[in-house]
Amino acid sequence: MTEFTVRTRRTRELVDITDRVQEAVRASGVREGICCVYVPHATAGVVVNENDDPQVCEDLLDALAKLFPDGVWRHDRVDNNASAHLKAAVTGPGQVIPVADGRLALGRWQAVMLAEFDGPRDRRVIVVVR
Amino acid sequence: MTEFTVRTRRTRELVDITDRVQEAVRASGVREGICCVYVPHATAGVVVNENDDPQVCEDLLDALAKLFPDGVWRHDRVDNNASAHLKAAVTGPGQVIPVADGRLALGRWQAVMLAEFDGPRDRRVIVVVR
Amino acid sequence: MTEFTVRTRRTRELVDITDRVQEAVRASGVREGICCVYVPHATAGVVVNENDDPQVCEDLLDALAKLFPDGVWRHDRVDNNASAHLKAAVTGPGQVIPVADGRLALGRWQAVMLAEFDGPRDRRVIVVVR
Repeated sequence: MTEFTVRTRRTRELVDITDRVQEAVRASGVREGICCVYVPHATAGVVVNENDDPQVCEDLLDALAKLFPDGVWRHDRVDNNASAHLKAAVTGPGQVIPVADGRLALGRWQAVMLAEFDGPRDRRVIVVVR
Repeated sequence: MTEFTVRTRRTRELVDITDRVQEAVRASGVREGICCVYVPHATAGVVVNENDDPQVCEDLLDALAKLFPDGVWRHDRVDNNASAHLKAAVTGPGQVIPVADGRLALGRWQAVMLAEFDGPRDRRVIVVVR
Repeated sequence: MTEFTVRTRRTRELVDITDRVQEAVRASGVREGICCVYVPHATAGVVVNENDDPQVCEDLLDALAKLFPDGVWRHDRVDNNASAHLKAAVTGPGQVIPVADGRLALGRWQAVMLAEFDGPRDRRVIVVVR
């Protein structure tokens, strides 16, 4: 198990962490198995999708903003970040990716991204390879 | 592998099962690895998010009710619970959480919750630790 | 680890792959553990839900089409398939399912389905059992 920190820069952004997860897989010495990438946070998540055109990431943030608008939820009266919780609940706190030949078995157009919904903050990413 | 049952009380609710999953991790004897929490149902799911303010759970149920309204789907003519299937499909039947020092590596604001979308019912929860 | 290919037939469809995943679990020889089903694609996903009434699948495709309409995103100017990326990002590239007695511990109403959002194409499905 390894852990690293990502310092996010904006309120909402997707940060490509593929290389850092790949390095954790390499360091584990596991050649074939599964890799769990997990954020121990309730207003962030892990998304696997395209980052070759980074506009896909912007589109996803826009789409989630439309589905979960700001400021209209019960929890907003407590902490004013309810929409971030809703986005994190739906995208999920982690993803499990196969490992083959000692590397993440990602597709050509797949990147692993930390989804920040209530930044900027320091976010922990836990990687377990089995 | 262990399994327990949750008796839900309402049509839609999130039931905090963190302690029961934590106990399954402890009983497994695994000190470091991953924990898969899974519900073998098509109208329920597993969500990881905040329960310190339980209004976050109510907000999530409200948000999903808006995105997947009742009574307007093909399957409603068969079983009248299509929206519950749609919510379960999107939240997913399970989550995988890292285990460290013999405990779930949850964040300060994360709880593990059974998401009931078509209750009240008895729901099975399967926990595998590896 | 095993891999198989699914040839999808329509732009959007759910293809039931339960039997092929079940066969991969059997061939692995693992009696108790977890099974990771993963698609290395950015416009497809894996969904676990009901297929006894296949209208549930049609309802899910309709629901996702409403939430993520075609043709209104930045990435559409590059590749005209942004909505497929958004659907894949939200449903997720994989699912983890417990294995008991050498078989997937699916519920009575659960099927494992490849979710095609930008077909028809040949899609790879990777199965890892641990």
